[in-house]
Amino acid sequence: MALLRWHYARMNKAFLAASAALALTLPASAQEAGKPAYPAPSEIVAAAPKSDWVAIPAEDLLVMTLAPDAEGKARQVVIQLMPAPFSQGWVHNIRLFARSGWYDGISVNRVQDNYVTQWGDPNYDNPEATGEPKPLPEGLKVMKEKEYVVSDIAALQDGYLPVFRRHEAANKNSRDDVIAFPIHDAYPGTPFHFKGWPLVLGFTGRIADHAYPTHCYGMVGVGRNYSPDTGSGAELYTVIGHAPRHLDRNIALVGRVIEGMDHLSSLPRGKGALGFYAADEADKRTPILSVRVASDLPASEQPRFEYLSTESDTFATYAEAIANRRDPFFIVPAGGADICNIRVPVRAVSGG
Amino acid sequence: MALLRWHYARMNKAFLAASAALALTLPASAQEAGKPAYPAPSEIVAAAPKSDWVAIPAEDLLVMTLAPDAEGKARQVVIQLMPAPFSQGWVHNIRLFARSGWYDGISVNRVQDNYVTQWGDPNYDNPEATGEPKPLPEGLKVMKEKEYVVSDIAALQDGYLPVFRRHEAANKNSRDDVIAFPIHDAYPGTPFHFKGWPLVLGFTGRIADHAYPTHCYGMVGVGRNYSPDTGSGAELYTVIGHAPRHLDRNIALVGRVIEGMDHLSSLPRGKGALGFYAADEADKRTPILSVRVASDLPASEQPRFEYLSTESDTFATYAEAIANRRDPFFIVPAGGADICNIRVPVRAVSGG
Repeated sequence: MALLRWHYARMNKAFLAASAALALTLPASAQEAGKPAYPAPSEIVAAAPKSDWVAIPAEDLLVMTLAPDAEGKARQVVIQLMPAPFSQGWVHNIRLFARSGWYDGISVNRVQDNYVTQWGDPNYDNPEATGEPKPLPEGLKVMKEKEYVVSDIAALQDGYLPVFRRHEAANKNSRDDVIAFPIHDAYPGTPFHFKGWPLVLGFTGRIADHAYPTHCYGMVGVGRNYSPDTGSGAELYTVIGHAPRHLDRNIALVGRVIEGMDHLSSLPRGKGALGFYAADEADKRTPILSVRVASDLPASEQPRFEYLSTESDTFATYAEAIANRRDPFFIVPAGGADICNIRVPVRAVSGG
Repeated sequence: MALLRWHYARMNKAFLAASAALALTLPASAQEAGKPAYPAPSEIVAAAPKSDWVAIPAEDLLVMTLAPDAEGKARQVVIQLMPAPFSQGWVHNIRLFARSGWYDGISVNRVQDNYVTQWGDPNYDNPEATGEPKPLPEGLKVMKEKEYVVSDIAALQDGYLPVFRRHEAANKNSRDDVIAFPIHDAYPGTPFHFKGWPLVLGFTGRIADHAYPTHCYGMVGVGRNYSPDTGSGAELYTVIGHAPRHLDRNIALVGRVIEGMDHLSSLPRGKGALGFYAADEADKRTPILSVRVASDLPASEQPRFEYLSTESDTFATYAEAIANRRDPFFIVPAGGADICNIRVPVRAVSGG
C-alpha cells in the first residue's frame, strides 16, 4: 500500500484484476514459511462486524458549508463534537454559536503550514479588519482553565481500564516475530482511546488522576488569548500538520473533522505572521456560509456517521496491526505506534 | 504565540509597537515571582551566535521549479539532500536524474491528505498514463534494503554520543519547575539529531547497533514497488501530515524540503486510490519544469542556506524549550517533545 506505485499501467483489464488481487496476497516467501496472511489495518476495519460500529448522535455533528471552490464545487466539512466529560462548556457554546447563526458569514483567516487552519470573525482582533466585529450571542459560558483536563477519572474508567485489557488483546493477536504493541509516547502520560477519542491519562507522581484529549491531526480546538482567557468557541482551528502536542492541556479541544478535511488542509498558507492572511491577500479568506447542528436539519439532510468502537477487539487488532505492519509492502514492522497514527475509523452511513 | 489571536486590531501604529513588545514579555504574575523570562524557542534560535550556524553545501541542494500557480506566481521548492552516511546510493541517483534533465517535465501525481505528496513520471505505472514512460538515465545504482539503515554506527558517534551530552545540557538549562527534556518516543529506539537530521538510534536487545533517518513532516523519500525493489529516485515524495513513522526502515529517506513546502502541502488532494489524481482530474497534476543541483547553477543564482548545528548548546536549549514551553501563551509545559516537533532550524542566507 503506502508508497507503492500502481502496477497496472499499460496492461489489459484482465491483467489489472489479477495484479490488484496479487497486492492483497502475501509475498511468496512468507507463504512458503507457512505463516498466515497479515491483513492490512484497512482490511481489519473492513471486516469488523456491524456491532463494532457506534452511531454518532446528530446533536454531536456540525455541518460547515464553505463557499464553493474556484471550480464552483461545493465544499462541506463535518465536525464531530466531543462527548461528556470533555470540554462540554465550550461544546455548549459552539452549539449556541451555530444555532444563533453567528458562524454564518465568518471566514478562514489563518492557515499556517504544518500547524493549524483557523476560522472566525475576520473583524475580531485582526489587523486587516474591514468592518466592526460581530456582537457575541447571549448565554455563552466562560470556562476555566482547569476544564482543559478531566479530573474525575472515575467517569473514564470504562476507557482507561480497557487500555490494559486491549494491550492484552493485542499481545494475544501478535505473532512470535511481531513485537507486541507497546503504549509508549514521546510525552508524559499514557495515551489511550475512550469512546472513539484519542486521550492521554495523566499522572501526579505515580498516581493517575486526570485525563485530556490530545492534539492529533484533524482535531478541532478553541482559539484563545493570553491566560486566563480560555476562548469562547467563536474562533476555532484544526490541526493540519504533525500533532502539536505541546498545546495539550493549554487549550480546549472540542472535536474533530470527520469529513471534508482536505477543504481545510489544502487551503493556501497565509503570508502574514502566524499564517494569517496578510493585507494583500485578504481575498484568500475562505467564506464560511453556514454552520448547522446536524440534528437541526431536516432528517433527509442529516449526515450520519459511525465510528469503530475503541473498546472493541477489532480496534485492538487494528491498533496492533498499525504498530506492526506486516502487509506485503512492509519489510520491518515498527514495533510501536504514536496514538495520532492510530486514527479512529469513522464512516459515513447512507440515510434510511 | 501559538493560537493566540492578534491583539492589535483597530489600534494605531504606536500602540501596535507597544503591544507587540508586550507579547514578548512575561505575564505580570511570573515577573512578580522573581523568575527570569522564559524565551520562546524562536527567540532562542534568533539569539544563536553566528558560529552555531552551519552552511549547507550547494551540492546538497536541489532547486525544483514547479509551473506557476493559478495566479501566475512562480513556485520554487528547495530540497536538502542527506549527507553521508545516509542513503548515499539514492542521493547519487537523484543528482544523476537532476543533471541529466530527467526530472524536467515530470509532475506531481499524488497528494494524499495527512500522508504524502508524490512526484514522478506520470506515464510510469500510472493507470491514467497518456504516453510512454521516459527511459531512465544510465548509471543508476540499484540499492539494497539493508541500506535503509546505517549499521556502522561508529560513523555516527559524533551524533549519538552528544544525545547524552545534550541531555545533560538541557537539564542544566532547565528550572526547578520545568521537567527536564526526556528523550522518549512512541517507537522503539532513541531519537536524536545528527548534523542537522532527525534520526533514530536502533537497538538489538540492549545493544545500539544501527541508526536510520525518520519520517518527519517535510522529509523526502523514494517511492518504490514491492520488496525487494528499493526505488531508484525517479519517484519522490514528501510527508505532508503526521509523521508516518511506520515507513522508517521500510523505504529510503534522502532529504527534506527546506523552502517552498507550502507549494507541495497545499495542493488539491487526489480523488483516486492512495490519493493519486483520478482520470477526470489529470489536469490537477502540477508540472515540474526543472530540478537542478544548486552547485550547477551560476553562482549568483545559487540559493544559500544554513542549519542550526544540532551539536550546539543553542540547539539543546532550543529543544528543551520546545519540550517545556513557558513563554507567555502557555500554562502547562508538555514535559517532553516528539522528535518531529523539534524541527531543525534552517535559514536562507543572502548571497555574497
